[in-house]
Amino acid sequence: MSNKLTIGMFGFGVVGQGLYDIIKTKNLNLEIKKFVIKNADKKRSLPAELFSTDAEAILDDPEINTVVELIDDAEAAYRLTVRALKSGKNVVSANKKMIAGHLEELVDIQHEYGTSLLYEGAVCGSIPIIRNLEEYYDNELLHSVSGIFNGSSNYILSKVFNENQLYADALKKAQELGFAETDPTLDVGGYDPKFKVCIVASHAYGIYVKPDDVFNIGIDKLGQQDIRFAKEKNFKIKLIPTAKEIDGNKVVLYVLPRLVGKESILYNVENENNGVLVKAAFADEQFFYGKGAGGHPTGSAVLSDIAALRYGYRYEYKKHLESSALNYSQDYLIKVYLRYTDDQLIEKLNFSEITERYYAADFKYVIGHINLQQIAAHKADLDREGNFIAEIA
Amino acid sequence: MSNKLTIGMFGFGVVGQGLYDIIKTKNLNLEIKKFVIKNADKKRSLPAELFSTDAEAILDDPEINTVVELIDDAEAAYRLTVRALKSGKNVVSANKKMIAGHLEELVDIQHEYGTSLLYEGAVCGSIPIIRNLEEYYDNELLHSVSGIFNGSSNYILSKVFNENQLYADALKKAQELGFAETDPTLDVGGYDPKFKVCIVASHAYGIYVKPDDVFNIGIDKLGQQDIRFAKEKNFKIKLIPTAKEIDGNKVVLYVLPRLVGKESILYNVENENNGVLVKAAFADEQFFYGKGAGGHPTGSAVLSDIAALRYGYRYEYKKHLESSALNYSQDYLIKVYLRYTDDQLIEKLNFSEITERYYAADFKYVIGHINLQQIAAHKADLDREGNFIAEIA
Repeated sequence: MSNKLTIGMFGFGVVGQGLYDIIKTKNLNLEIKKFVIKNADKKRSLPAELFSTDAEAILDDPEINTVVELIDDAEAAYRLTVRALKSGKNVVSANKKMIAGHLEELVDIQHEYGTSLLYEGAVCGSIPIIRNLEEYYDNELLHSVSGIFNGSSNYILSKVFNENQLYADALKKAQELGFAETDPTLDVGGYDPKFKVCIVASHAYGIYVKPDDVFNIGIDKLGQQDIRFAKEKNFKIKLIPTAKEIDGNKVVLYVLPRLVGKESILYNVENENNGVLVKAAFADEQFFYGKGAGGHPTGSAVLSDIAALRYGYRYEYKKHLESSALNYSQDYLIKVYLRYTDDQLIEKLNFSEITERYYAADFKYVIGHINLQQIAAHKADLDREGNFIAEIA
Repeated sequence: MSNKLTIGMFGFGVVGQGLYDIIKTKNLNLEIKKFVIKNADKKRSLPAELFSTDAEAILDDPEINTVVELIDDAEAAYRLTVRALKSGKNVVSANKKMIAGHLEELVDIQHEYGTSLLYEGAVCGSIPIIRNLEEYYDNELLHSVSGIFNGSSNYILSKVFNENQLYADALKKAQELGFAETDPTLDVGGYDPKFKVCIVASHAYGIYVKPDDVFNIGIDKLGQQDIRFAKEKNFKIKLIPTAKEIDGNKVVLYVLPRLVGKESILYNVENENNGVLVKAAFADEQFFYGKGAGGHPTGSAVLSDIAALRYGYRYEYKKHLESSALNYSQDYLIKVYLRYTDDQLIEKLNFSEITERYYAADFKYVIGHINLQQIAAHKADLDREGNFIAEIA
């Protein structure tokens, strides 16, 4: 009934170690035959013959039918994944940047070579959102999929909002805890959630969108004035990627901070937790919550993918097969709060409507409606110190 | 790739109508050939030749390969389901009482006859908890599965706690809105969530437990003193079914009101919404939230099951195949709040430890630890007007 898996694993960090620990304790009809690692000198907790620094030790071994790819380098991961899939090996990966950047090609390769690439661990750690989009919402018209997809920036925002910590201190703490990278731009700049929302959009709407074509801005320019403003209005600020169907034939994708009120289920998602909000025509509002990062939560998603491969599981990309052609678009009016310093920025941005305007010596903001295309066209300006933009739901 | 489904549907109420509406708009490779209904005289929105009052019009039709069972009567549903499964038809049902009461037999029949019975709609409406337990947590050690599984009683509790409505008024309103049955005991007495937690336990732990063997008590004896007590301590009261592994070899199941604090994710589940909290060794805490009742949310679960049948999907009941034998138990110490009138009840209940005791003219309570077996043995006493018991987490 289940196929025996012989696994080669690239990377043996926190996730790899956790995975090995749990696989050991279970009777899963699988064996990890080889780990390929970068640093041969690091002391390992397992017998030396299990390790190699040569990728061919996995890729060239015909006994290995399953590759688990858990390395940081997205380009190296991409090359390994393509080679493995083309040589008849199934692949489990948690590399969101690699998947998002090459998804269309990776799907084509799966179809051509009859192999399976699973990547639940790449999107919101332990939360089984890809599997649910594939299997459970495959016939649902989805109004939107959004949420909190990045544990590091959410951790920082929680500390800032609930414990009055300074942004810089909270970031440092997140780095110490291993939630944020040494270069935190991927997280706090909104790139990581952008990769994830591109992957989500493919399973939710059957479209391939390159991350480079999607607007993202993060929380790294968040200032004390913004926090004060949000608190006065009983908002929290969250970093929210959104995939949303509009006009029945288009899908918009973007990543923006958002002012979130108590009535939103995202309001209570704190610290390194993630939450995915699915609004569906028929199922109504659905919410998935769990740990978004960390060795064990991500490991659990990887393990579920490995276990599913024993039964020949593959994503069907069903929404791509539907006739209704949805197109990616940035032509979408959103309501924003914008703190700014230079009045010329407001001229440039070409708001459709400004409903509030505030001036003080140290704090100027507008609230108004603006087309996402305008925002995307002026990303460099908006991303400058002294400016902060957030969506108002 | 997908099999054409020819469907016979028992029942044509809110869910059936909603299903028909959505199926019409989609190209799902399926056809509803016949509805069997009880009342031939009711005016229908569809052509008369689609309807019959004779169950054989579905069960005897060899062209119909899929039965969708959406009737209220659990015993009639059971007979139809067994006949359909034995005659080679797959079945989708949303009848929690029927499934919970006959699960082991229904699993045996599926194995013997090679047919598939799916019932996502039976547990927490739109929330795909069964599918996730089956497919995603199939290799996870689950510490517990609990949550808010009954929309009617949660709606009542929300009105009582947030809008200071009287219990009786909130119940009446729930009935008017169609959330609660005319005889509301199934909901507010905790029977409905008990059926659901029995089904959940089978997929989470690989055990069959008869609903009659599981303790349940509801919220129908909730009094103003309990509400005051809870509010003073910043608790809300929620009706919570629990399935929990203890001592590595036992599973306890019970349904009790619970005093829930702000730190719990269940605290914010309001009105007719449901939430399922999965605590897993590896994936950590996971939470699924959505509409627990209503034609469309339940219909969406039923539709997902129907769609999955096109691909030959069946529950594997994987946890039942594992060697680790878990046994059902009621030998479990829990901490409770108990409002009572008759002092003799406290004697009888044989608390392991009483940590607080309060007396006033109109209000007496104890807080202490007590074995679930004791609680279960005195259900009749606890269920008497003047008493109210709730777990303290």
